[in-house]
Amino acid sequence: MSNINIGVIGYGYWGPNIVRNFFATQSCTIKMVADGRPERLSALAKIFPSIQGVKDAEDIIGNKEIDAVVIATPVFTHFGLAKRALLNGKHVLIEKPMTSSVAEADELIELAAQKGLTLMADHTFLYTGAVEKMKEIIQTEGIGSPQYFDSSRINLGLFQPDINVLWDLAPHDISILTYLITEEPVSINATGISHTGNEIENIAYLTVNYNSSFVAHFNCSWSSPVKVRQTLIGGDKKMILYNDLEPSEKVRVYDTGYNHKTEEDRTRIMVDYRTGDVSIPKLSTREALAGVAADFVQSIIQKKSPLSNALLGRSVVRILEASQKSIKNQGKEVRIK
Amino acid sequence: MSNINIGVIGYGYWGPNIVRNFFATQSCTIKMVADGRPERLSALAKIFPSIQGVKDAEDIIGNKEIDAVVIATPVFTHFGLAKRALLNGKHVLIEKPMTSSVAEADELIELAAQKGLTLMADHTFLYTGAVEKMKEIIQTEGIGSPQYFDSSRINLGLFQPDINVLWDLAPHDISILTYLITEEPVSINATGISHTGNEIENIAYLTVNYNSSFVAHFNCSWSSPVKVRQTLIGGDKKMILYNDLEPSEKVRVYDTGYNHKTEEDRTRIMVDYRTGDVSIPKLSTREALAGVAADFVQSIIQKKSPLSNALLGRSVVRILEASQKSIKNQGKEVRIK
Amino acid sequence: MSNINIGVIGYGYWGPNIVRNFFATQSCTIKMVADGRPERLSALAKIFPSIQGVKDAEDIIGNKEIDAVVIATPVFTHFGLAKRALLNGKHVLIEKPMTSSVAEADELIELAAQKGLTLMADHTFLYTGAVEKMKEIIQTEGIGSPQYFDSSRINLGLFQPDINVLWDLAPHDISILTYLITEEPVSINATGISHTGNEIENIAYLTVNYNSSFVAHFNCSWSSPVKVRQTLIGGDKKMILYNDLEPSEKVRVYDTGYNHKTEEDRTRIMVDYRTGDVSIPKLSTREALAGVAADFVQSIIQKKSPLSNALLGRSVVRILEASQKSIKNQGKEVRIK
Amino acid sequence: MSNINIGVIGYGYWGPNIVRNFFATQSCTIKMVADGRPERLSALAKIFPSIQGVKDAEDIIGNKEIDAVVIATPVFTHFGLAKRALLNGKHVLIEKPMTSSVAEADELIELAAQKGLTLMADHTFLYTGAVEKMKEIIQTEGIGSPQYFDSSRINLGLFQPDINVLWDLAPHDISILTYLITEEPVSINATGISHTGNEIENIAYLTVNYNSSFVAHFNCSWSSPVKVRQTLIGGDKKMILYNDLEPSEKVRVYDTGYNHKTEEDRTRIMVDYRTGDVSIPKLSTREALAGVAADFVQSIIQKKSPLSNALLGRSVVRILEASQKSIKNQGKEVRIK
Repeated sequence: MSNINIGVIGYGYWGPNIVRNFFATQSCTIKMVADGRPERLSALAKIFPSIQGVKDAEDIIGNKEIDAVVIATPVFTHFGLAKRALLNGKHVLIEKPMTSSVAEADELIELAAQKGLTLMADHTFLYTGAVEKMKEIIQTEGIGSPQYFDSSRINLGLFQPDINVLWDLAPHDISILTYLITEEPVSINATGISHTGNEIENIAYLTVNYNSSFVAHFNCSWSSPVKVRQTLIGGDKKMILYNDLEPSEKVRVYDTGYNHKTEEDRTRIMVDYRTGDVSIPKLSTREALAGVAADFVQSIIQKKSPLSNALLGRSVVRILEASQKSIKNQGKEVRIK
Repeated sequence: MSNINIGVIGYGYWGPNIVRNFFATQSCTIKMVADGRPERLSALAKIFPSIQGVKDAEDIIGNKEIDAVVIATPVFTHFGLAKRALLNGKHVLIEKPMTSSVAEADELIELAAQKGLTLMADHTFLYTGAVEKMKEIIQTEGIGSPQYFDSSRINLGLFQPDINVLWDLAPHDISILTYLITEEPVSINATGISHTGNEIENIAYLTVNYNSSFVAHFNCSWSSPVKVRQTLIGGDKKMILYNDLEPSEKVRVYDTGYNHKTEEDRTRIMVDYRTGDVSIPKLSTREALAGVAADFVQSIIQKKSPLSNALLGRSVVRILEASQKSIKNQGKEVRIK
Repeated sequence: MSNINIGVIGYGYWGPNIVRNFFATQSCTIKMVADGRPERLSALAKIFPSIQGVKDAEDIIGNKEIDAVVIATPVFTHFGLAKRALLNGKHVLIEKPMTSSVAEADELIELAAQKGLTLMADHTFLYTGAVEKMKEIIQTEGIGSPQYFDSSRINLGLFQPDINVLWDLAPHDISILTYLITEEPVSINATGISHTGNEIENIAYLTVNYNSSFVAHFNCSWSSPVKVRQTLIGGDKKMILYNDLEPSEKVRVYDTGYNHKTEEDRTRIMVDYRTGDVSIPKLSTREALAGVAADFVQSIIQKKSPLSNALLGRSVVRILEASQKSIKNQGKEVRIK
Repeated sequence: MSNINIGVIGYGYWGPNIVRNFFATQSCTIKMVADGRPERLSALAKIFPSIQGVKDAEDIIGNKEIDAVVIATPVFTHFGLAKRALLNGKHVLIEKPMTSSVAEADELIELAAQKGLTLMADHTFLYTGAVEKMKEIIQTEGIGSPQYFDSSRINLGLFQPDINVLWDLAPHDISILTYLITEEPVSINATGISHTGNEIENIAYLTVNYNSSFVAHFNCSWSSPVKVRQTLIGGDKKMILYNDLEPSEKVRVYDTGYNHKTEEDRTRIMVDYRTGDVSIPKLSTREALAGVAADFVQSIIQKKSPLSNALLGRSVVRILEASQKSIKNQGKEVRIK
């Protein structure tokens, strides 16, 4: 199969970006786009007259010419659409978060494996120049023993009616965490608050715990007057500041760390600090979604696992699912596996 | 009593600032300073030859000429020194955090009340131009219904050998929270991690819960390559960004907020966003510690309660104490009262 | 005339923005676009199939259906195209800088007046929310007696082959100066350097002198590793910082100023400084070019003078022309009128 | 001579810093300080009881025990004091700017040479970690062919009654320029404005011209609502941003540059841009004035030339003197030698 025929389900906020990027990707053709809203199909027709617009997603899922579908609809519809697509032999790329639950993710993963189909989650950030560079730094130079991952993603954002702020904003950062740090988390704690009376948190805090002394923390809010998109990643040799709002200097590497030595009397410690140069590497400026599209198409053709594969997508859902449970249980630790 | 004779116990990092500021304060005289380290007493003698240096704190506590003592020693010594001072009829000002436990704070508060003595905690930040201005804004113009207080205080800091990062850094922000927000907290959740193997957390996260939908969160770290001292205070009418590292523009007031209306179908909400002008008020630049000194002296003379009174000091200790319990119980909610 | 038929000459970098904005403007229709490059006409056809693309500008200038032309071609072609268009009875909007010389500008202005046609320069910045707000502040609250205008517009920019960095970058800032400050300049001094050996300066500094003690200064460079787009406007009562790179806080108003009093001994002065609050007004976010388009169309229909009229365009050219003369004369003062 | 006895003339704003730093410098002893104001001598006595305070500078200049004098008085007094000190066989360190004219500088330099005495200007910035690092970068890695030096030093500053803003602020940046760039300047242009009616400019702009295509520019103001202390230094291989207000990241090195090739048709050029990584080197944090003191003392002892020697001090005065002439001649180019 040297050319993949693609159907896109959902042409809302993100859909046009998906269509535009797959359009520019080699070895694939966008054949159809489905959206129930006539005005969205008109918008499609104006820019991409060569693509067939349909109202019903089933027209794509049931179409024999379609090899692969991209699902860009609200989260609660992901599972049903993806399952039917897989059952119809289609490769599937799903918007983040991949599913509403781990159980759903597991069922899709098993189904894709049985059918020999590619199942991929669209964690676009993994394909940015910034994350690519951080992965490279961690893998090659190293940052020493990883110590923490501390992320803030806050702004005056649109209150989602069906998912809370963690499901909305944290998938980006959790996917980055999962990609960069290979250790498996063991539990989480989360707290949050709703200011609208509908029990959908607009501010939430999440701690992810590990067997080692590594820790991850996420601060997410739709209620901040200032926009922050920032993550600190600390190792005992180097530390990274990733500020996604910087136009070009998104990644700063601090040659900074500390060692400690526990004295015989174990309550006494000696900590050696070290601060050094800072470097700001030049980053690739390729559009991340172009990387997603190419990876999806090539993974199908070469029968390889994509970077943003379904297991990574499941890991993100697993933390989100647990966080909801913890918030509803007053921050109680929730074990994950 | 129109002139207060003062003795200072502890001449370490903070002591010289205390001495210098009380020196410049009206209606008081610094008579004695106690420190067990001879080199500290020499340092004192060079700059303030008029002050008597003594090795033993008891020489101050037992001295009849001394009306009031300032305790600037490690936390675990606060209670013993303060108790003896109160028993000897001295007014007492204690460095933050006031005591190691709520029980200790309660005993001191009761003792001070019995003896009719002033007991005060040195929460210096309450006397800064920035906090003064934020209090004024909240009290006069108002920020609407308070929604959140979100604070970060992180840097590559000295690892303390006896107290964790929350006890070290959070008292500043908790005292500001307690001063600005009148609602009483009901519980807390905290998580943290130690990278030195001595069970003293160098990174910790704290959520403070309230009966209303207000929430407070604190992110404290000694392990960050960058220094951050920032707090967001959100109301539904206005929001405040307090950045203590800004040389002169520490407080920014956003004429930003949102209202919501729950539709009949309660899962649906309508949120009205509003963004508007930003204003950066001019702040008083008086040294905060000069305000602490003046408030202590005048509270003694006028028999009034200081701003940073012992009840506020106790509130801070109460949250710190609970946070330790929560961290050791995997982030479990701990009720406070 | 209630609908203006428009032809656009030049579909390079700026042309598509012009077409898009006039497309969305009421009371006008874009009928034709001329560009000699076939690939540019193809690009046009894809997005705007309703617009006729022609290779030769004369097809627009000579077309009786066309009421008005927009000229978005290299500077040295502006005069010829505009003159022929005016002679053919077309209203004309010309990209900045309007012409290559004051003589050319004068000829066009006279011709437009004779023919009763609208002649306008596209100084887009005058229509931004930031400049609109600064004009409003200066006109209503006032900044006191204007003292200086100090602008930096530097980055690692494309070296233009035919015009120097002042002709390329300074028109933005000179148009803002001319719009905000009503006093007429009397002379200029300029210095500059070329690093390419072709005598086209890539770095240049320009001082504009006035009869009063007001002064304006411009720092322009294509050779800076960092991008700066910043102007300080000082009055003796208030000062404004305009940073065009700020995403939303482009204008900051400082309630800062100083008065002076010359003592009898005139070499002695007393200066009273005042620093106060800073305010950051919310700005309109309408696309500036939409304002240009609407102003051009409405100026034609209502026979009124546009904001960015030809006299303002001439004022900008006058300063640029003089600056070139000064640079070539080692920074010598050049009088302007 | 293994211990240098030092007298300091002038104990105003900068004097206490000088005394403190020489106090901590090896191989020297501060014996006397002269200041005509009794309150300044009291201030001295409180902190440094071991130093003899005198009212009259001549008591130092005429004292046989004194080996070296430091002159920290208003500029117009530098020459007279330094000359008498040299005539009395004292080594001399003079605050920046060294003298009021090149003629004065020349006379002092000649006198010092005749007498075999050390004559040094206190250009403190040369001893900062930032300038030290920039010198090292330029000397070792190189920045390619130097292209420009562009400096801004503006704030709401104290209006000096006797010297203009260039004489007050530019010596810092001109000394850095002179230290870093070895090519000799050939002429300058300067413009400026006075807002106080006393003909002492509070805003001024200075261009320094060279035989090569290198250029330097200085923007100095006492009238800015914001404080800026920033210099860009461009080479065709690397560029440096030096921001003195950054607490620790004062120097950023951009691996950015451009080459050009003039085509046969000399008006056509091809410019190759290159942007790359940015690095922020760790800087020495030694107090700069400690470096000045050590260099002065060691230069005397070892009979070597200090970094901030009198020739460098003369170069700075030469540019300042010429700038004044240019400002008074409407920006006309003034040759220097």
